[in-house]
Amino acid sequence: MRSPQALRNGGADNRSPTPRFHSTVAEQKLRRFNSLILVFRLTSFSFSLASFVFMLTNIHGSDSPHWYDSDTFRPKFCIRFVLAANAIVALYSLFEMVASVWEISRGATVFPEVIQVWFDFGHDQVFAYLLLSASAAGTAEARTLKERDTCTVSNAFCVQSDIAIALGYAGFLFLGFTSLLSGFRAVCFIINGSRFHL
Amino acid sequence: MRSPQALRNGGADNRSPTPRFHSTVAEQKLRRFNSLILVFRLTSFSFSLASFVFMLTNIHGSDSPHWYDSDTFRPKFCIRFVLAANAIVALYSLFEMVASVWEISRGATVFPEVIQVWFDFGHDQVFAYLLLSASAAGTAEARTLKERDTCTVSNAFCVQSDIAIALGYAGFLFLGFTSLLSGFRAVCFIINGSRFHL
Repeated sequence: MRSPQALRNGGADNRSPTPRFHSTVAEQKLRRFNSLILVFRLTSFSFSLASFVFMLTNIHGSDSPHWYDSDTFRPKFCIRFVLAANAIVALYSLFEMVASVWEISRGATVFPEVIQVWFDFGHDQVFAYLLLSASAAGTAEARTLKERDTCTVSNAFCVQSDIAIALGYAGFLFLGFTSLLSGFRAVCFIINGSRFHL
Repeated sequence: MRSPQALRNGGADNRSPTPRFHSTVAEQKLRRFNSLILVFRLTSFSFSLASFVFMLTNIHGSDSPHWYDSDTFRPKFCIRFVLAANAIVALYSLFEMVASVWEISRGATVFPEVIQVWFDFGHDQVFAYLLLSASAAGTAEARTLKERDTCTVSNAFCVQSDIAIALGYAGFLFLGFTSLLSGFRAVCFIINGSRFHL
């Protein structure tokens, strides 16, 4: 079995000139920490994907044909924003889940450690803000649709929109938790030069 | 001059039983770090207050009397959300500015150190998300108002709303930066048991 130090920077070739001792306990703790991140990412992925699918089937559903051409179903911008933000977060979560499984199974990060740590934290933060703002804008638009005749023309459209937006908020919540964990990992890296300090 | 250790937990009486040495360099670094946080808080406060005042004068302005009773100026919920979020952030920033000035001038935190560090980070995070979601919802509503006859009835109302929302986004940006700095301080506290490690 390779030592954790040898596995730090995405491969066995990137050994530090001053290797430090990391106990099996520290490695087990890191594995448990990474598993927790993986569970959060899986939850976030599920909610975002569900939100995306709900909104997409809503837009192209039989109840509301050509909604985007119709004045009744305007404004449309924020609904598209919800759709795009959830798609982006679902794709990102999928990539990060693969990276997490890779890290747990091989003990090494996909990118070099310093890039991986900052990549995770930066994207978690930005996408959490993106998803929240999309959901908030979507909520405002859903309220507007209710005040027009949209919901009398097609009540199913409004209910499905509400569900999609609520799923987006749930996705944001778990992405927010993940961002706290990856932020903790990033600061551990700044201070100790290793993500192993937990 | 009192040692930094004596000043850690909100007063000279809360001395740790095992005092540690903190150099004047570390103290100066902390003072510079706190000054940076103070500048960010001041900027965030200015933008939020400006946004609040703009939106309030807009609502009660002579151009749009009783906008909240009029169907033309509906929906109104998100505009109130923008108003409330900016007021909360302005008040919170004002309080935190006083706490920062206190800390820089006296070298001690207002609350005990552990509470202060988590209070700052938690509130920065929550209020940054609050302000962003209010601004996003406000943007969605402002778009809706433009598509109705609101902006033809009173163009000044729409322009002033846009400015207020933009100022809210600026406030969020600086609150986000502050949240990163206070997050760094919180993790320093977890790892080293002191906000002095910079």
